[in-house]
Amino acid sequence: MNSFGRFFRFSLWGESHGPEIGVVIDGVPAGLPLAAKDFRRDLARRRTGAPGTSTRREPDVPRLVSGIFRGKTSGAPLAVLFENRDARSGDYAGLERRPRPGHADFTAGKKFSGCNDPRGGGHFSGRLTLALVAAGVVAKRVIAPAAVSARLSEIGGVRLTPGRGRRAALARLAAVAAAGDSLGAIIACRGRGLPVGLGEPFFDALESLVAHLVLAVPGVRGIEFGAGFSAAAMTGSEHNDPIVDGAGRTASNHAGGVCGGISNGNELLFRVAAKPTASIGREQDTIDLRSGRRVRIRVRGRHDACFALRLPVVIEAAGAVVIADLMLLDQQRRRVPSGIRREK
Amino acid sequence: MNSFGRFFRFSLWGESHGPEIGVVIDGVPAGLPLAAKDFRRDLARRRTGAPGTSTRREPDVPRLVSGIFRGKTSGAPLAVLFENRDARSGDYAGLERRPRPGHADFTAGKKFSGCNDPRGGGHFSGRLTLALVAAGVVAKRVIAPAAVSARLSEIGGVRLTPGRGRRAALARLAAVAAAGDSLGAIIACRGRGLPVGLGEPFFDALESLVAHLVLAVPGVRGIEFGAGFSAAAMTGSEHNDPIVDGAGRTASNHAGGVCGGISNGNELLFRVAAKPTASIGREQDTIDLRSGRRVRIRVRGRHDACFALRLPVVIEAAGAVVIADLMLLDQQRRRVPSGIRREK
Amino acid sequence: MNSFGRFFRFSLWGESHGPEIGVVIDGVPAGLPLAAKDFRRDLARRRTGAPGTSTRREPDVPRLVSGIFRGKTSGAPLAVLFENRDARSGDYAGLERRPRPGHADFTAGKKFSGCNDPRGGGHFSGRLTLALVAAGVVAKRVIAPAAVSARLSEIGGVRLTPGRGRRAALARLAAVAAAGDSLGAIIACRGRGLPVGLGEPFFDALESLVAHLVLAVPGVRGIEFGAGFSAAAMTGSEHNDPIVDGAGRTASNHAGGVCGGISNGNELLFRVAAKPTASIGREQDTIDLRSGRRVRIRVRGRHDACFALRLPVVIEAAGAVVIADLMLLDQQRRRVPSGIRREK
Amino acid sequence: MNSFGRFFRFSLWGESHGPEIGVVIDGVPAGLPLAAKDFRRDLARRRTGAPGTSTRREPDVPRLVSGIFRGKTSGAPLAVLFENRDARSGDYAGLERRPRPGHADFTAGKKFSGCNDPRGGGHFSGRLTLALVAAGVVAKRVIAPAAVSARLSEIGGVRLTPGRGRRAALARLAAVAAAGDSLGAIIACRGRGLPVGLGEPFFDALESLVAHLVLAVPGVRGIEFGAGFSAAAMTGSEHNDPIVDGAGRTASNHAGGVCGGISNGNELLFRVAAKPTASIGREQDTIDLRSGRRVRIRVRGRHDACFALRLPVVIEAAGAVVIADLMLLDQQRRRVPSGIRREK
Repeated sequence: MNSFGRFFRFSLWGESHGPEIGVVIDGVPAGLPLAAKDFRRDLARRRTGAPGTSTRREPDVPRLVSGIFRGKTSGAPLAVLFENRDARSGDYAGLERRPRPGHADFTAGKKFSGCNDPRGGGHFSGRLTLALVAAGVVAKRVIAPAAVSARLSEIGGVRLTPGRGRRAALARLAAVAAAGDSLGAIIACRGRGLPVGLGEPFFDALESLVAHLVLAVPGVRGIEFGAGFSAAAMTGSEHNDPIVDGAGRTASNHAGGVCGGISNGNELLFRVAAKPTASIGREQDTIDLRSGRRVRIRVRGRHDACFALRLPVVIEAAGAVVIADLMLLDQQRRRVPSGIRREK
Repeated sequence: MNSFGRFFRFSLWGESHGPEIGVVIDGVPAGLPLAAKDFRRDLARRRTGAPGTSTRREPDVPRLVSGIFRGKTSGAPLAVLFENRDARSGDYAGLERRPRPGHADFTAGKKFSGCNDPRGGGHFSGRLTLALVAAGVVAKRVIAPAAVSARLSEIGGVRLTPGRGRRAALARLAAVAAAGDSLGAIIACRGRGLPVGLGEPFFDALESLVAHLVLAVPGVRGIEFGAGFSAAAMTGSEHNDPIVDGAGRTASNHAGGVCGGISNGNELLFRVAAKPTASIGREQDTIDLRSGRRVRIRVRGRHDACFALRLPVVIEAAGAVVIADLMLLDQQRRRVPSGIRREK
Repeated sequence: MNSFGRFFRFSLWGESHGPEIGVVIDGVPAGLPLAAKDFRRDLARRRTGAPGTSTRREPDVPRLVSGIFRGKTSGAPLAVLFENRDARSGDYAGLERRPRPGHADFTAGKKFSGCNDPRGGGHFSGRLTLALVAAGVVAKRVIAPAAVSARLSEIGGVRLTPGRGRRAALARLAAVAAAGDSLGAIIACRGRGLPVGLGEPFFDALESLVAHLVLAVPGVRGIEFGAGFSAAAMTGSEHNDPIVDGAGRTASNHAGGVCGGISNGNELLFRVAAKPTASIGREQDTIDLRSGRRVRIRVRGRHDACFALRLPVVIEAAGAVVIADLMLLDQQRRRVPSGIRREK
Repeated sequence: MNSFGRFFRFSLWGESHGPEIGVVIDGVPAGLPLAAKDFRRDLARRRTGAPGTSTRREPDVPRLVSGIFRGKTSGAPLAVLFENRDARSGDYAGLERRPRPGHADFTAGKKFSGCNDPRGGGHFSGRLTLALVAAGVVAKRVIAPAAVSARLSEIGGVRLTPGRGRRAALARLAAVAAAGDSLGAIIACRGRGLPVGLGEPFFDALESLVAHLVLAVPGVRGIEFGAGFSAAAMTGSEHNDPIVDGAGRTASNHAGGVCGGISNGNELLFRVAAKPTASIGREQDTIDLRSGRRVRIRVRGRHDACFALRLPVVIEAAGAVVIADLMLLDQQRRRVPSGIRREK
C-alpha cells in the first residue's frame, strides 16, 4: 500500500522519471497556517548538491493544490505536487534484461510481470522520499511544540564525533567515491516534548509504527530504540530506567522513551542503519535474463556516493508523521465523549 | 489497534490475569486441515518450565470455537481461546501507585486514566504473545512449503556457537538469576522457500511489516535485516549481492532476501534484540505517585530470568503471519482477473 | 471482513451451530461502567418467543472475558462471548447439494469451495446479529446522552399506526405463518441528541457508514434517509429544510438530520426494508447440484415467520455503533493538539 | 476518509474552486492498456451542457501523471489530475455567515471551525464526483467483461418509460427550472457478467460496499437492491427466487443478484434516489449566524436544475469500483496459495 497512517494518513505516487510526484494527506486538522514557503527548509536538506551526492538537480518546488484556504489548512485533504525536471531516462535502458544488484529491478520486474517503470528505479526510487519529506513538514506543524531531529552519527563506519570525525568521514567518502564505490551510514533520531501516552496496544506500539515507516525508506536495513541491540547484552538492573518524578522522567534512558509501546515522556531515541548506495561505478556481476548467462555490468545514471547524507530529514519526517498520527489518535483514546457517565 | 494484517488479519484480546485470552483470524483460506493438536508443538516451545523461565504454569490448551468445519477451515473467522489458570494477582497490588521501572505500569496508567488492569501487566503482558503464537500456527500452514524458523543466537552477550556457547550462556544466566537479575538476548530468524515478489510498495515493504509486528512483541528493542547495522560500515561493492541465475539467486545474502522491499527468492534473514526481563528481584528506584516521593521497590510475581528464551517461536509466528498476509496479497496483485484484456 | 469501524472497531465470529459466538470491540474508551447485566434488555429484545418468531431458544448469556477491570472498561479490547445451546443440526443435512432459495447456501458454497459450514446458515446466519447487538450495547453507552431507537413501522405492507395497525399486521402474519409462508417489514430508526459534525468527507459520510452496516444485516434490502425515495419526486423548494436557529435546527427534516454527509444537529432519520424470511414451510424449486436436475424441497429447521420482528434492536445497534465510531473520530478531527499554533 | 476500497483503493482530493482535483488509485493490476482518451466517454456523460444542467463549462481533460508505462498500467499508483478552469468564486461570498439550506455550509463550517473552503461547496461539491468517474473508468477496465450500466428511471416523479416518459419529464423539468426550482430523480443500475462469489462476510457484503460508496455521492438519499422496499410487502414464497441451473441462475431476480451478501451470478440490480438540487433560484429561509436573525437568501452561482441528470455515470463508477475491489479480493479468498496441502 502506498498509504500510511490512520488519522494523519498520507498517500504518495510517482516515479523517478515520471512527470510528477505527489502526496495527499488526509486528516490534517483544520486551522493550521501553511504555505509553500514552509516546505523550503526541509526540502533543501534532502536536495543534492553537497559532495558525495548525485548531480541530478531538481528544484523541488511544492504546489499545494488542495486543502488550503486563506492560508490555513481547511480540513480537506492536502495535496502537494512536485515536477520531475532533470531526469535522464536514457541511462536506464536494459535494466529489465540485466537487473542491477542491490536494486528492485529484479524483484519489481517479477512482481509486476515486467510492466513496472524501471527508469531510475521507477516507483521504487529514493526520489519518492520527497513526498515523505513533504508530509513530514505538515506533521511537524501538527506535533509542535514537540519536535523530531535526526542527524548522521556514522558514515562508512567512522563516527561523527564533534571534533574531527566528520572530516575523517568525508575524506573516506571522497576516496571511496573516487574509486567508483559507495558508503552506508547510521542516523540517530530523537523526539523531544512528546506527551506520555503515544502508542496503541497491541500492534500499534510507538516503536512498531516508527519501524514500519522507517524500514519503508529505500536502503534502510535496521532500526533500534534506546539501548537497542546493546540491550541484549545488559542485565535488567543495568537496563531498567529508574523513574524519578511524577511526570515519569527517568534517571537513564535505555528504553529510548518508550515503555510497553507507549511514550513515557522522556526523549524518544532511535538509530537507523542505511546501506551503501547500490548504484556504484564499478563493474558488477549479474544475470542476463534473456540469455540466462552471467554478465558484468557497469551501472550508469547519476547517484549519491552515500545517499544517507540526504537521509536525516527523511527519517525525521517518518518520525514526525508517526507522532502526528498517534497524537491525534491518543487525544481520542483518552478523552471520553462528553456524554459518558463516568463512575463517580 | 489490537489487529494486524490486511488479508490474514488477526485480532487479539485478553489480560495476563483475566479469565481468557483469545485471537480471531479473518481471511484464512477455506479447506486447510486444522485441529487443536496442530497447535501443540509451538505452544510447548513458548511454555515455561526450562531453567531461567517463570514458575507460572499454564496448560495453554486451545479451544477452536469457530471457523472449522469437518476438520478443515471453513473460510469464516477462526477463533482460538485459551484460559488463564495459574494467575496470582495478589503479587501485583500497588503497581498503580508505585510503577515498576521498565514496565508499562506508568505509561498505561497515564494513557487509560488509571482504569487499565495492572495485574501481571494486564493487556501489556508477554502472556498475550500466546495469541500471536496461535496465529502463527495457522499462518505457517498457509505459507507451507515456505517456512520460518527462529533460534536464540546470543544470551546476555554470549554467542550460542554450536560448541560450548550454549552451556556458557546458560551458566551465566543461572548466575545472574541467582543474583535476582535478568538477561537479554538476540534471536536470529530465517524464512525459506519464499517466492519472489512478497512486499508492497511503498509502505508495506516486507521489512516494514515484519518490523511492525516484531517490535510490537513486548521487550523487543531492535531489528535488522541481512547485514543490518553492519551494512552501514560496508562499501557498495562489498554489500551488493551479485545475481547468479534467472531465479534471482545471489552469491552472497547481505540483503537478507529483500530488495526494494520485495522478497528476492533468497533466504529471508533478520535478527531481533530482546532486552533483559524488566521484572527483577533486586531493589529498584521508582516514584510513589501518590506521595510524589522516590521509593525503592522489590518486584514480586513469577518471572523469566530471560524471557527471550521463550521468544523464538513468537518471532517465528510474527514472520509467518506477515508472510501469509503478503503471500495472499501478492497472489492477487500479480494475477489479473480473468476478464482483463491484456495487450497482446 | 468481519470487522467494522475505525475507532470503535469490532470483529465478530461464530456460526449458527458452532459452540460459541463472540465479538471483540477495540477502542472502547476507558472508564465506562459495564457489566453483563447491562446487556440484558437489548438481548431480550432480539430473543425469540413472541408469536411469529422461531422456536429455537437460546439463553444468550454474555460472558465478558476481557477489557473490564473493577467494573469499568479498561481501554483494552472488550471480548463478549455467547454459547449456542439449542442448535439442531440434523435439520440442515443436504443443503450443500440442494441450496435453499433466498439463502447463502449456493453463494457461500461456491465462494468457499464447499468448505463452509451450512448448518443453520453457518456464519451467514442471522444468529450472528447477536454479536452486533452486544456491540450496540457498548456503543450506546459511549454515545449517551445521544440515543438511537428503532421500531417496526410496517409488517407485510400493513402500517403499524398507533391505533389498530399492529393488530391487523399480526393477524396477517399469523395467517401467513399458518400457510407456511413469511413476511417482510419496514423499520424506522431515529437518533436523538447527536452533535453537529458527525460524518467524514468524502467517503465516510454518516449515511455511508450507517448504510454499510445496516445492509450487512442479513435480509436487509434497502435504506433511505429522511425523505428518502420520496425526495426524488420533490422540488428543491419543498425538500430544502429552512435553518431556523444558530444551532442548525431546521423547520422540516427532509434531510433526515444529515447535510453533506455530516450530522446537522436535528434528528437522524432512516428507514430500512427487510425481506420476508427466506426459510418457508412451503415447497420450493431449486436445483440438485449433484445431478443437475431441478427438484422441489421443503425447508426444515425452526424459523421466524417474520425475522424483522426481532430486527429493531439490531438496526439500533448498527446506528449506535456508527455514531460511536464517528463521535470518537470527530472529537479528534475538531480538536487541534495542544501544541498547534493557530493563527490569531 | 477520502479513500475507499481495500485492493482497488482510491483517494481523492480537491475543491470546487481550487486549482486542481485529483484521484490516486492504488492496487490497479499491472499490464492494463490505459490512456487519457479512455476517459473521454465517461467524462463527457458527467459534463454539463444538456438542458437542465449548469452553465459552468469545464473541459475535464485528465492528466495521467503516474502509474502508466509504455501505455499500460505499471502496478504503481495511478494518479489522474484535472484542472478547474471555470470557477466563479465571487458568487459564494457570505456563505459562512448565511448557510444555504440543504447544503454542507452549516455542517462543514461547524466541523472545521470555519476553516473550510465554502466556495461552490468546497470539498463537499458534486464537482468531486469527477474523481470518482475517473476511478470508475479504470475499474471498468479491471472488471471487464463484467460491466455496469446506470440510467435515469424517474425524474421528478415522472417515469422514463421507453415511449413518451422522457419527453414529459424534460418538459416538467424545464417548467420547474424556469420557476427557479429543481427536481430529484431515481437512477437504476445493473451489473452484468459478475462471477458468483463477490462480497465478504460479515460486513463487506456486496450491498454494503455499494451502498457505502453510493451514499457518499452528494445528494443521494436512498438505495435499494432487487425488490428493495417493495420486498417488505411480499411473502417469502413470492420473494424467493427459484434456482434453475447449476450456475445459480434464478427464475426471478427479487434478490437483485445478491444472496447472503454475495453475488449469485444473476444481474446485480439496485436503484438510487437523488434529491432535488439544493441550490435553487427562489428565496429561502435561513439564519444569519453572526446576528442570530432569520433571513431570506437567494442562492447565486450556476447550478443544475436536476443534478441527477449527470449522475448515472457516477453511480456506474461507484458500482464498478466496488466490483473491482471485491473481484480482486475474492480472487485471493478463493485460491489457496500453491503450497497449501489440501486434504485429499
